[in-house]
Amino acid sequence: MKQGEIKVETIRTIRELRRKLAPHRQSGRSIGFMPTLGYMHEGHLSLIRRARKENDIAVISIFVNPLQFGPNEDFDRYPRDMERDLRLAQEAGVDFAFVPDVREMYPEPVKTTVKVSGITDRLCGASRPGHFEGVATVVLKLLLIVGPDRAYFGMKDAQQVAVIEQMVKDLNVPVAIVPCPTLRESDGLAMSSRNVYLSPEERRQAVVLNQALQEAAAAAAAGRTDAGYLRSLVAGRIAAAPLADPEYVEVLSYPSLEPLEGRAQPGTRIIIAVAVRFGKTRLIDNTILEIR
Amino acid sequence: MKQGEIKVETIRTIRELRRKLAPHRQSGRSIGFMPTLGYMHEGHLSLIRRARKENDIAVISIFVNPLQFGPNEDFDRYPRDMERDLRLAQEAGVDFAFVPDVREMYPEPVKTTVKVSGITDRLCGASRPGHFEGVATVVLKLLLIVGPDRAYFGMKDAQQVAVIEQMVKDLNVPVAIVPCPTLRESDGLAMSSRNVYLSPEERRQAVVLNQALQEAAAAAAAGRTDAGYLRSLVAGRIAAAPLADPEYVEVLSYPSLEPLEGRAQPGTRIIIAVAVRFGKTRLIDNTILEIR
Repeated sequence: MKQGEIKVETIRTIRELRRKLAPHRQSGRSIGFMPTLGYMHEGHLSLIRRARKENDIAVISIFVNPLQFGPNEDFDRYPRDMERDLRLAQEAGVDFAFVPDVREMYPEPVKTTVKVSGITDRLCGASRPGHFEGVATVVLKLLLIVGPDRAYFGMKDAQQVAVIEQMVKDLNVPVAIVPCPTLRESDGLAMSSRNVYLSPEERRQAVVLNQALQEAAAAAAAGRTDAGYLRSLVAGRIAAAPLADPEYVEVLSYPSLEPLEGRAQPGTRIIIAVAVRFGKTRLIDNTILEIR
Repeated sequence: MKQGEIKVETIRTIRELRRKLAPHRQSGRSIGFMPTLGYMHEGHLSLIRRARKENDIAVISIFVNPLQFGPNEDFDRYPRDMERDLRLAQEAGVDFAFVPDVREMYPEPVKTTVKVSGITDRLCGASRPGHFEGVATVVLKLLLIVGPDRAYFGMKDAQQVAVIEQMVKDLNVPVAIVPCPTLRESDGLAMSSRNVYLSPEERRQAVVLNQALQEAAAAAAAGRTDAGYLRSLVAGRIAAAPLADPEYVEVLSYPSLEPLEGRAQPGTRIIIAVAVRFGKTRLIDNTILEIR
């Protein structure tokens, strides 16, 4: 095969994907699946490689899901590069890339939605109304279309992982959800498709998210586990970056994502999660800490 | 085998059911499924026999789902007779009866719910707030637990069938929904587990539901397809039964369940649906008409 030639099988319809996967399932081969919005980076690829390694068949979807974007969000300008994505997917060992258009996924106006309450009250659930209904609905659709044994999600969207794990448990979806660690640039910035939007100066300052979270993690490890203190530490550190416009800085229980009062209890897990705008670009990051 | 001995396999946990069904699925055998609230009557049995005939394996569930009953509804006094149900299921040819308790189906407070909008605005959706969220959520759970090829539902709950068909289509649940005709007593009363609640006099008068619907069907067949006229005809006929306390009488498009203005259009389908209380007992019935 020529270098760079696309071998990954690109499938545009639900019917065709099911037809292709049926014989593999019937033969007892395991299927690993990773849904993406495309514009892949090393973070995606690390998940694909893991899906590739842990399953007989690796499937990805590339679909920018309008249902999870608000009316004033970046659905239209969300970065897209299908050719590059397919090449990267190919190199990472994907067998099937499901690339439906919006009409294939939503042939009619959407009447059925999936809502996960509680977990979605705060963080991105509070600042992006309807976002997690859109995520839960499309992820459930994709899981029911692909029917994977395992599905892989990155922990940069920790709230998304919590929502999907809750949904899968509550609805008895027959799949194992595999959360995967956030991949970072060499200076610590969490990898994101939206990083391409950043100006050079914004990009330099964006490292503050991870730096603030690392400082808080160090403080917690040293015994400073008061939620209010940790929140102030992170918020103060981010405020010191002139181009950073914080949307939220929160310290919550994990994975229930409920507010914490006072000191985090030993034996529990907490998440410190941030969303910060740099110009028009919205970045998120988080760290999950085991409290001892 | 002794007459009356229970052979149908009774399974109480999700894990056990999946374990039992997996080899059948792996061997390519088709699975027919019918969810019930139990207290089975001939209507249920006709669906089971059909599931039995059209599939290699027939599965039922018996589960009185608290999520679909309102706080002032009859969850606690809903009739139950597991032994009789299992005997009837056995006679109708069921292979597996899934009989989970509430903790098995809802081990934790429910965070994830499925909502089907539009179709649930009227009829039982209007008079029983939250009912169809409870139905959609539990039916989706059961479909994902059992993983049937076909699932059977009675048309007495026409709105339920419309809701489930919409959900299955919108969420790409890999199952064929098979709607089955309403079975009736010899005098025309639609079979229902709740009919046992009726006093002898209520039982005599309850036949008015079907009589009113049949009169309206005859009028429509004779060209009287004005929605307001049909509604008045049915409402008037029911009002003539002294013990009948109508909850709703509606003439809607089918299956979208939207209000109709004026004459129903040729080539469309309409549903005339009624809910009527006799004492504490709430009965529903409907007829679906093809307009020519």
